[in-house]
Amino acid sequence: MITSTTNKQVKFVNSLVKKARTRREEGLFVAEGLRMCQEIPKEQIYSLYISESFHKNKECQDLVERAGRAELVSDEVFKAFSDTQSPQGVLALVHQYRYTLEDVAGTETETGRPALFMVLERLQDPGNLGTIIRAGEGAGVTGILMDKDTADIYNPKVIRATMGSVLRVPFFYTEDLRADLKTLKQKGIRLYAAHLKGRRSYDQEDYKGDTGFLIGNEANGLTEETAALADAYIRIPMLGQVESLNAAVASSVLMFEAARQRRNEASGL
Amino acid sequence: MITSTTNKQVKFVNSLVKKARTRREEGLFVAEGLRMCQEIPKEQIYSLYISESFHKNKECQDLVERAGRAELVSDEVFKAFSDTQSPQGVLALVHQYRYTLEDVAGTETETGRPALFMVLERLQDPGNLGTIIRAGEGAGVTGILMDKDTADIYNPKVIRATMGSVLRVPFFYTEDLRADLKTLKQKGIRLYAAHLKGRRSYDQEDYKGDTGFLIGNEANGLTEETAALADAYIRIPMLGQVESLNAAVASSVLMFEAARQRRNEASGL
Repeated sequence: MITSTTNKQVKFVNSLVKKARTRREEGLFVAEGLRMCQEIPKEQIYSLYISESFHKNKECQDLVERAGRAELVSDEVFKAFSDTQSPQGVLALVHQYRYTLEDVAGTETETGRPALFMVLERLQDPGNLGTIIRAGEGAGVTGILMDKDTADIYNPKVIRATMGSVLRVPFFYTEDLRADLKTLKQKGIRLYAAHLKGRRSYDQEDYKGDTGFLIGNEANGLTEETAALADAYIRIPMLGQVESLNAAVASSVLMFEAARQRRNEASGL
Repeated sequence: MITSTTNKQVKFVNSLVKKARTRREEGLFVAEGLRMCQEIPKEQIYSLYISESFHKNKECQDLVERAGRAELVSDEVFKAFSDTQSPQGVLALVHQYRYTLEDVAGTETETGRPALFMVLERLQDPGNLGTIIRAGEGAGVTGILMDKDTADIYNPKVIRATMGSVLRVPFFYTEDLRADLKTLKQKGIRLYAAHLKGRRSYDQEDYKGDTGFLIGNEANGLTEETAALADAYIRIPMLGQVESLNAAVASSVLMFEAARQRRNEASGL
């Protein structure tokens, strides 16, 4: 059992929790909690850490058996590398996922189902990003396309907010967002920018074909150059004195409107 | 200028930031940031605190002039009582708002416009609560009804997430949620519980009349007893392996569906 916080492995986990650079270099990320760890496919698990007081838990033992191995650590050590205030006592190091732009935004012609993806530019808040991924899985998105200035999807706060969806929703960080958006447009995908200049209400457009929604930074919205690549500016009509919605709320309203339209089409409504 | 963190006023502000009990006893809450403070009606402002380095800002001076008075504090003191990591340098103590159940959930017969309110039971996360209030104002809710086990709306994290909407959206903490829901039902208001047992999809119901949406605790949902008071259980259809949505996302999808229906009715669609 590891009992010292200066242990090499403990330092490694700590660095993966705190540093995007270490995660990138090692190709790993950290997932915490029993429920989350149970959902990780076996082949994605790099290693498993269990706290002294949690290792007798039956479900925890099943998890260890499935993973084939685990490191036992003292409760004190576990608390030191956990990102949560009241850690459950189980944490996995997980191999990062590798997707392509096509995984995220393949067209109906290419994949047999119409694309439905979010394009996030400079989104900063990890909670928002995680919530968008979770809601996106529920709404049936094909994936999430992000620029390099968007928060790190492997930040433990993002992972936690996804409630496991990060293990299932394809995503791609592009080196050149605008070039990729041009490519997607050429393939016939319709891009919609949530924008204050939008004239048409979001529910007046048709999202049953290949669709991407563009959402920008929490404080500043989309850059003009990126917004200009959209086929249409749309707005979510707002009452009161509200000028904008939380980015995860705006994304969810759009994604679930697309899901609603596709469901109604499928049922012949 | 106040330069000591042991100053009596500084301790008072600190206590209002940190303790729900102090806020309740004093009938005050704390709002931070220039934009937020500018939106507070003058008569609601109890006092204003400005940091040394921010007090020369033109907009800050306009604010002080409008409020009629302000306390200058050193940057160090400001940082000590701010709830944010990089405080802007302006903070207001604000008189709490007093609303009634009727302000929140008055019927169309009583008020001339159909009720549209959220009912929150045991909602715990301050960020979720604040986001619901912000989205709620945008969707045109008449108010937010909460039980005593829901997070304190005057928690600084809630205030911040509302982006000012807390100053405009009526809300009411009920001592007896179920009794109040019964009263509202008797007045003809339709109550919808977002529930895993829901058979009807949320977009198959009509929300143009007096409507309340019931949302429960993030982890456990609504209590059975409260859910049983709903006229209908509804669900947001979900794809993938998602079992539930973030509470603020689910609330927003429902509120904006109601807004969409009301808008379409108003425009004759």
